Amino acid sequence: MSSIFTKIINREIPAHIVAEDANYIAFLDIMPLCKGHVLVVPKKEVDYIFDLDDETLAGLHVFSKKVAKAIDKTIPCTRVGVAIIGLEVPHVHVHLVPLRTMDDINFTRAKLKLSQEELKAIAEQIKKGF
Amino acid sequence: MSSIFTKIINREIPAHIVAEDANYIAFLDIMPLCKGHVLVVPKKEVDYIFDLDDETLAGLHVFSKKVAKAIDKTIPCTRVGVAIIGLEVPHVHVHLVPLRTMDDINFTRAKLKLSQEELKAIAEQIKKGF
Repeated sequence: MSSIFTKIINREIPAHIVAEDANYIAFLDIMPLCKGHVLVVPKKEVDYIFDLDDETLAGLHVFSKKVAKAIDKTIPCTRVGVAIIGLEVPHVHVHLVPLRTMDDINFTRAKLKLSQEELKAIAEQIKKGF
Repeated sequence: MSSIFTKIINREIPAHIVAEDANYIAFLDIMPLCKGHVLVVPKKEVDYIFDLDDETLAGLHVFSKKVAKAIDKTIPCTRVGVAIIGLEVPHVHVHLVPLRTMDDINFTRAKLKLSQEELKAIAEQIKKGF
């Protein structure tokens, strides 16, 4: 069965997509740590980041840099932090989190609850910076 | 003034180095979240990860993958997590953290206090896996 992220890639379920190319896609985390928290995902469905071949891994981070620059331009933050954990959805995803403090990238704390309208507005903002 | 990491690269201050090539170095975090918590650093002294040129960024992650594979082989964990935060030392560093739970990569919690002997033994173990 395909992962929830593959379903997003295939447009079987909706997401607030902010950027996409042939190999990668970026969309808002719907359980964000902060406003502007984005997931960057390789279209190839692999569970563990360090099982990606070198080329896909390198491309994922270069694509993530472009997305992070768009977040930096459009979302108030000190810088964009990166986390790759992978204990939940078994499909590689890079968390890009607009940071001000260390606690902004603490995955054990309560997530924000944003409406679809709020998420849509944030995605539009980041897209403009891309 | 050069960063604390440049001083490690130049052997001006000691560290428990686990891997090194012409462009990157990996050594133990002396304030680790878990046993086997490693920092991977580009020798080029740049503050913000997303200010690295694409080639250095890609190379950093491919080098980090080699280090992570060595951690996976030698340190008991479910997988190796990645975090790049950069609110403290102004020289890019990738945290590689052997994970079992989400809290293992929570930077707001208390760090481990390990002796030099314990750190040395962990570094030797990871080096063997490299």
